[in-house]
Amino acid sequence: MWGGRFAEGPSAIMREINASIPFDKALWRQDIAASEAHVAMLAAQGIVSAEDARAISDGLAAIAHEYERDGVPENWDLEDIHMTTEARLAELIGPAAGRLHTARSRNDQVATDFRLWVREALDEMDAGLAALQRALVTRAGEHAATIMPGFTHLQTAQPVTLGHHLMAYYEMFRRDRSRLADARDRLNECPLGSAALAGTGFPIDREITSEALGFDRPTANSLDAVSDRDFALDYLFTASACALHLSRLAEELVLWASQPFGFVRLPDSLSTGSSIMPQKKNPDAAELVRGHAGRVIGCATALMVTMKGLPLAYSKDMQDDKPPVFEAASLMALSIAAMTGMIGDATFATARMRQAAEMGYATATDLADWLVREAGIPFREAHHVTGAVVKFADARGLALNEVPLADLAAIDERIDERVFDALSVDASVAARASYGGTAPEQVRMQVDRARAALGMETLTGEAGE
Amino acid sequence: MWGGRFAEGPSAIMREINASIPFDKALWRQDIAASEAHVAMLAAQGIVSAEDARAISDGLAAIAHEYERDGVPENWDLEDIHMTTEARLAELIGPAAGRLHTARSRNDQVATDFRLWVREALDEMDAGLAALQRALVTRAGEHAATIMPGFTHLQTAQPVTLGHHLMAYYEMFRRDRSRLADARDRLNECPLGSAALAGTGFPIDREITSEALGFDRPTANSLDAVSDRDFALDYLFTASACALHLSRLAEELVLWASQPFGFVRLPDSLSTGSSIMPQKKNPDAAELVRGHAGRVIGCATALMVTMKGLPLAYSKDMQDDKPPVFEAASLMALSIAAMTGMIGDATFATARMRQAAEMGYATATDLADWLVREAGIPFREAHHVTGAVVKFADARGLALNEVPLADLAAIDERIDERVFDALSVDASVAARASYGGTAPEQVRMQVDRARAALGMETLTGEAGE
Amino acid sequence: MWGGRFAEGPSAIMREINASIPFDKALWRQDIAASEAHVAMLAAQGIVSAEDARAISDGLAAIAHEYERDGVPENWDLEDIHMTTEARLAELIGPAAGRLHTARSRNDQVATDFRLWVREALDEMDAGLAALQRALVTRAGEHAATIMPGFTHLQTAQPVTLGHHLMAYYEMFRRDRSRLADARDRLNECPLGSAALAGTGFPIDREITSEALGFDRPTANSLDAVSDRDFALDYLFTASACALHLSRLAEELVLWASQPFGFVRLPDSLSTGSSIMPQKKNPDAAELVRGHAGRVIGCATALMVTMKGLPLAYSKDMQDDKPPVFEAASLMALSIAAMTGMIGDATFATARMRQAAEMGYATATDLADWLVREAGIPFREAHHVTGAVVKFADARGLALNEVPLADLAAIDERIDERVFDALSVDASVAARASYGGTAPEQVRMQVDRARAALGMETLTGEAGE
Amino acid sequence: MWGGRFAEGPSAIMREINASIPFDKALWRQDIAASEAHVAMLAAQGIVSAEDARAISDGLAAIAHEYERDGVPENWDLEDIHMTTEARLAELIGPAAGRLHTARSRNDQVATDFRLWVREALDEMDAGLAALQRALVTRAGEHAATIMPGFTHLQTAQPVTLGHHLMAYYEMFRRDRSRLADARDRLNECPLGSAALAGTGFPIDREITSEALGFDRPTANSLDAVSDRDFALDYLFTASACALHLSRLAEELVLWASQPFGFVRLPDSLSTGSSIMPQKKNPDAAELVRGHAGRVIGCATALMVTMKGLPLAYSKDMQDDKPPVFEAASLMALSIAAMTGMIGDATFATARMRQAAEMGYATATDLADWLVREAGIPFREAHHVTGAVVKFADARGLALNEVPLADLAAIDERIDERVFDALSVDASVAARASYGGTAPEQVRMQVDRARAALGMETLTGEAGE
Repeated sequence: MWGGRFAEGPSAIMREINASIPFDKALWRQDIAASEAHVAMLAAQGIVSAEDARAISDGLAAIAHEYERDGVPENWDLEDIHMTTEARLAELIGPAAGRLHTARSRNDQVATDFRLWVREALDEMDAGLAALQRALVTRAGEHAATIMPGFTHLQTAQPVTLGHHLMAYYEMFRRDRSRLADARDRLNECPLGSAALAGTGFPIDREITSEALGFDRPTANSLDAVSDRDFALDYLFTASACALHLSRLAEELVLWASQPFGFVRLPDSLSTGSSIMPQKKNPDAAELVRGHAGRVIGCATALMVTMKGLPLAYSKDMQDDKPPVFEAASLMALSIAAMTGMIGDATFATARMRQAAEMGYATATDLADWLVREAGIPFREAHHVTGAVVKFADARGLALNEVPLADLAAIDERIDERVFDALSVDASVAARASYGGTAPEQVRMQVDRARAALGMETLTGEAGE
Repeated sequence: MWGGRFAEGPSAIMREINASIPFDKALWRQDIAASEAHVAMLAAQGIVSAEDARAISDGLAAIAHEYERDGVPENWDLEDIHMTTEARLAELIGPAAGRLHTARSRNDQVATDFRLWVREALDEMDAGLAALQRALVTRAGEHAATIMPGFTHLQTAQPVTLGHHLMAYYEMFRRDRSRLADARDRLNECPLGSAALAGTGFPIDREITSEALGFDRPTANSLDAVSDRDFALDYLFTASACALHLSRLAEELVLWASQPFGFVRLPDSLSTGSSIMPQKKNPDAAELVRGHAGRVIGCATALMVTMKGLPLAYSKDMQDDKPPVFEAASLMALSIAAMTGMIGDATFATARMRQAAEMGYATATDLADWLVREAGIPFREAHHVTGAVVKFADARGLALNEVPLADLAAIDERIDERVFDALSVDASVAARASYGGTAPEQVRMQVDRARAALGMETLTGEAGE
Repeated sequence: MWGGRFAEGPSAIMREINASIPFDKALWRQDIAASEAHVAMLAAQGIVSAEDARAISDGLAAIAHEYERDGVPENWDLEDIHMTTEARLAELIGPAAGRLHTARSRNDQVATDFRLWVREALDEMDAGLAALQRALVTRAGEHAATIMPGFTHLQTAQPVTLGHHLMAYYEMFRRDRSRLADARDRLNECPLGSAALAGTGFPIDREITSEALGFDRPTANSLDAVSDRDFALDYLFTASACALHLSRLAEELVLWASQPFGFVRLPDSLSTGSSIMPQKKNPDAAELVRGHAGRVIGCATALMVTMKGLPLAYSKDMQDDKPPVFEAASLMALSIAAMTGMIGDATFATARMRQAAEMGYATATDLADWLVREAGIPFREAHHVTGAVVKFADARGLALNEVPLADLAAIDERIDERVFDALSVDASVAARASYGGTAPEQVRMQVDRARAALGMETLTGEAGE
Repeated sequence: MWGGRFAEGPSAIMREINASIPFDKALWRQDIAASEAHVAMLAAQGIVSAEDARAISDGLAAIAHEYERDGVPENWDLEDIHMTTEARLAELIGPAAGRLHTARSRNDQVATDFRLWVREALDEMDAGLAALQRALVTRAGEHAATIMPGFTHLQTAQPVTLGHHLMAYYEMFRRDRSRLADARDRLNECPLGSAALAGTGFPIDREITSEALGFDRPTANSLDAVSDRDFALDYLFTASACALHLSRLAEELVLWASQPFGFVRLPDSLSTGSSIMPQKKNPDAAELVRGHAGRVIGCATALMVTMKGLPLAYSKDMQDDKPPVFEAASLMALSIAAMTGMIGDATFATARMRQAAEMGYATATDLADWLVREAGIPFREAHHVTGAVVKFADARGLALNEVPLADLAAIDERIDERVFDALSVDASVAARASYGGTAPEQVRMQVDRARAALGMETLTGEAGE
């Protein structure tokens, strides 16, 4: 009945299903930091003697050194990182080790450790995104006037600049970073001292441990503190939003690198070639970034389902909070770094982009706008006239600015020679100078605002903030 | 081949799949408000004449009146709320209606409308949660000293107070409200004037429309502005987090209302009875709140999958953004209101709760803590002694505070008569007076901080902020 | 406190949250059919008199007629379709109506109704997919020898035929149809007679009702029968798998319709044009099909989360089973029909496809294969030689079959003139004649097997099965 | 810019994001089996010489031996299990190793390997579920007449038997096993020979490899064969459905093990105790099973999102197919084994269950049924009378069968002494003898049908099938 790896029966199953040490050993630094803060507070409050506190503190330092050097041992019978460390402490310093667990419980301990870990993960994602933003604004500055087709429905719609397009992603990652900041603020309350669920009768001072660990304040309700995994959810929501943004940029890189588009050549270091087709460059990194979005969203779903309908306070189900967060953090770090490398080192085929923009009557809207603006025609009527012009040009294989004035005037007599100023792709993008628009001057302003926000020197030479 | 409702073939399919009017008519107020702001700006900038602007504005007011009175007509051939309103405007005021669409596109128009709608939904959820918090703190204040069993793993662990338990939910909804505030800040940028994707050549002033519609500023990048649905995702993430909190409280109400628990009697108005078993009360509202969490999370998943991998700028896929948000908003409004009603009007069976807390040796931790604190025994050893006492008591069917002192001393001679002060459930909760703990004084402080934050009079009689 | 639509307070909330009639009225036909089968069985077993049974049956027929003519009335106080119908029956035939509910409960009633509804939805999806498959095999037969580039990583890899590409989707939908058949088999057990949860003491015969309603057998366990929603999950899993397939085909249509690809012109009836750019055709229907995949997957997620952790037997949460299924069914019907229309009426730009296939050294693998096959070179070495040839050609701007023999021989002396037979795109596809391969003869065989399976006349003129 | 683990820059990122060897080494047995089948076929078809084939085959056997003994080496530069093995083969046998890759590609190779792996995972899940079913039917047979409260809305509704309740789960797992069988049938087609995407020009025989690897037939379309991950989705759908069933049973075990219920004592080997509260038993294994449902559903979501909108044929995104499947398989194996252990060794508190069933007027429906059946009263009127009786009993603190006949007759004169035969919990369950009902005789029949289907001896002593 208990074949295979569970041949020993239920006890073998339990050892395996119950052991979190294979993954929660990732928390060892946080666990030791929290224990150090805890014992220092216990000593300050006179709950443990100075001598015991020193022995514990020295022991923890020794263990940290061991873990750093040899890794954390995985003994499933010790279940988790907390027991693993405490058992080692007892070996090193004897019975005094038992005093470390005064006025705390694994419930508040793991909540504290995991918050510390997630806080670092938030900070790392933020640093990664800042680097990606710097790559984007650098390339956007170079290409503030590079013409490419702007798409809607993946149909050529109007000419835009590549710099403008790249800055759209700057905005997305700006929002992601604001999510990270919000998540960090919300997370930054210290559960330590909540004990099993009800608080403790020992005269602890939660302000001391909170401050020592860099939290803004202690959590307000001990039952909530050991039952809450909102900080992990906030992390996964933010990672999901960011992964979606990355998936869109990755999709565009894959499209642009395809032969029919031919808009970009991705860096060799982030593509794979083919020994048989040396001209072929598979955008593997971009595809993996796009694919990883699925797994990150899967991680968010996992934690939501696990938390659904759990009564208070701690339930063991909540041990399933860590694998999704750890997996998402690893995928996000890789995805952001890979995208930064691709954006930084991509070679844009600017001639091909311009050529594509010049096809497809992308300046038809400019003609319509000219008719409204210069000839005073209502917008919907101007559309109608423009349609007739495009149809005429299409039938003769002409670009819009190649249609003779006489023919234009025959379609609508209010058209005059000034119209040609509006019909080139350069004129088109230059015209769209409304705030946030695609005109090179607007794009440069966007870039400079972004450079300043990122602490980079601005294009105009002024230092950022 | 095209049986049933598509008997006409592809054109019938297209009319149905393409029409968003059946759901986006919910945006009519926002659509008219945005049009009014737009035309006022166009007039102020001299892009349309004052006369035309007045005609348009009057026409919009007339349409708003019609919609209010008769509802929005659903003509699938007009596709969406924008075309429906513009077509009606043309009927009412003639060709000048065509000038309204100058310097805008449906892409920035729908992005603006939908942001306005979501902003209201955020505000409504916030108001609903504030009411729920008021119900929680009111009941928590009443029950600051009401003893109940505190559970971990749904096993009786330590006595807590009902007020403490309810305040844990106050904290969860506090975090949800901070998510709403963050989402609102991030959302509050105005896409209007981004036009199709590239901005416009008309001399618009985006600050004017932004301010008129209550936004903090215009969006910075027009390509991003028409491609972005982060504000809808933020809404759904927040709704999901809140739905999970509600699902936990609903689960507890269902448990507590069961005969084996018997901790609560839910209000008649939010339960269903049975004609055959008058004593039976099905906690339908609580179950539906718990079930709705699934649908809200489904809505979040839906939008994430839809947005995955979409290239810039607008793609029609994004039309699938609205149904999940509308559905989630409706479910959340109902769930929050139902929960507020249940918390406000529940009758707690306090005697039954206390009885349950007194069973199961819930004060065993207090004995261990006493041994540490008063007898100076290391924590892990104190645990061992406590285990022996509980085993002794269990074998004789005694509660912990019923074990004779002589027997206690026989187990460990360091136990003396002072121990009995620690072993009642009242002593247990009173002792846990650490910050955020379950002691009634601590709970009252939590309640008063919350009442002040909610603008309610505090228990001590001082007015809140 | 109870502002807005809940001004009346909890009773208004309860009426709205509890009422399922707004959506479960969709079950009216199934509800009446199940009631008719039930009362006929009750009469056959002597549990109700023949007279009462006739009155009930006549009453149900009259109600069906009313619903058909006027729609189902939505009175929230009657909660659901079952109570709505029973209340109307009482109005029509008096107290005898009360006998209909003998030996059943709403729990088994709704389980039966919903299974009947889902069974029809499975059959409708199957019919829709069969039509889509017919469109695919028809177009595949026309294009069995049409050359296009085959992509991996969206990079041109090897030439394939369009017919081959389309038949890949035939296979996907074949698997979806097998999922539908499996789901139908698993669903087809009749819950009626399970009563509230425990079965009934009345001498009913469940075989009679099961057979009358077209089920294979009664469900085996009454507790399971009222608690189970696997049939709804199976529906949503199958819909999700199918929606993913549709999303891939939709993505390809959007790509192919873009100007840089230019592989397809979608039918006017399923695209939207632009009054301003008559040459522009937005692939709205394809985008909506792709977007709908998100919502369908959201529906599957919703039901999974709702069902997670529910104890037996019926819980009210399960009322949230219907909206996701109804929504998914509607989206799938539209998506499949739209895709069928697009495939059936698309115009493929075959010259453009061939031209794209001839670029990019897509026959490099054929050169390598020739070296292995004809010159006996190990595969990995052949790759190396091929790489040198492609590099040489690329540097001179030549296609592979334009490189002079002398130059080829200079790279590897084992290459002789026979190699040119392998280097054209036509030769390439013709060569890949392994089972399931892209050679036109293989594609025609695939098409004919498919046509036979679909009951269509085969290309060779033989009738299908 | 490239701090931390990516200090080397893009090449370090690429090595890490691109390497699948850390997880796909799990496929090594399948990879070697598929290579052995492939080379045997190449030799049989005369595509490689018998000598080379023997060298390759011997080399593969040697590698298998190494992997078995030492594990699979993780060299990221070799990317995946295919390259790792091929590189080692070249070391062992020299250039002939290069011939193994003739007429195949990594695309069809990984599709074949992964199908083989998933097929085994399906078989293992099936074996695990069969063991769980055996545990369920064994306990159900023991408790065919054990009375417990049947719940709806977690309110006591009617008495049922524990055996009946356990058999409801037998049914759920029966459906899961039918899903596994369906998934296996659909999966069992061999992609090998599809090559990169288009098939191959070598004269391979795909029937040979298909049969050698235990597949039913080769896949019909090579483009589909390398693009399809339906078999992985089917696995994850089935795992999700099964995980939901397990989550429901786990929820019940957690509830039943709580002090207020007290229906079950879980085996020590699958619980954790508390050194401080020896009477406490945390149902950790049940909670982890319930929590794991979240992660399994997260895995299904992950793959769905990843596959959404991918164009044909192979894209690198699809490399993200394996981690979710591997994770889900591991979680399912543990969850099923843990549940089997809990069901097999649980101690049911039958007296407590009966006591709970006797409370709450659970036989009120029996009174109503009696009124219909024996007194000929319409169902709805019988309900009304029953309500009056229960109200009377409740007011006096009596059980239903303790109300004096005189008082019953005063409420409705049609009640006579025979009614008492219907009002005990034993009479209630005995009466519900409809097919699938809770009567012990019915439960024993369910158990015997199940035992026969599982190949176990039946309760009546007859051997199963």
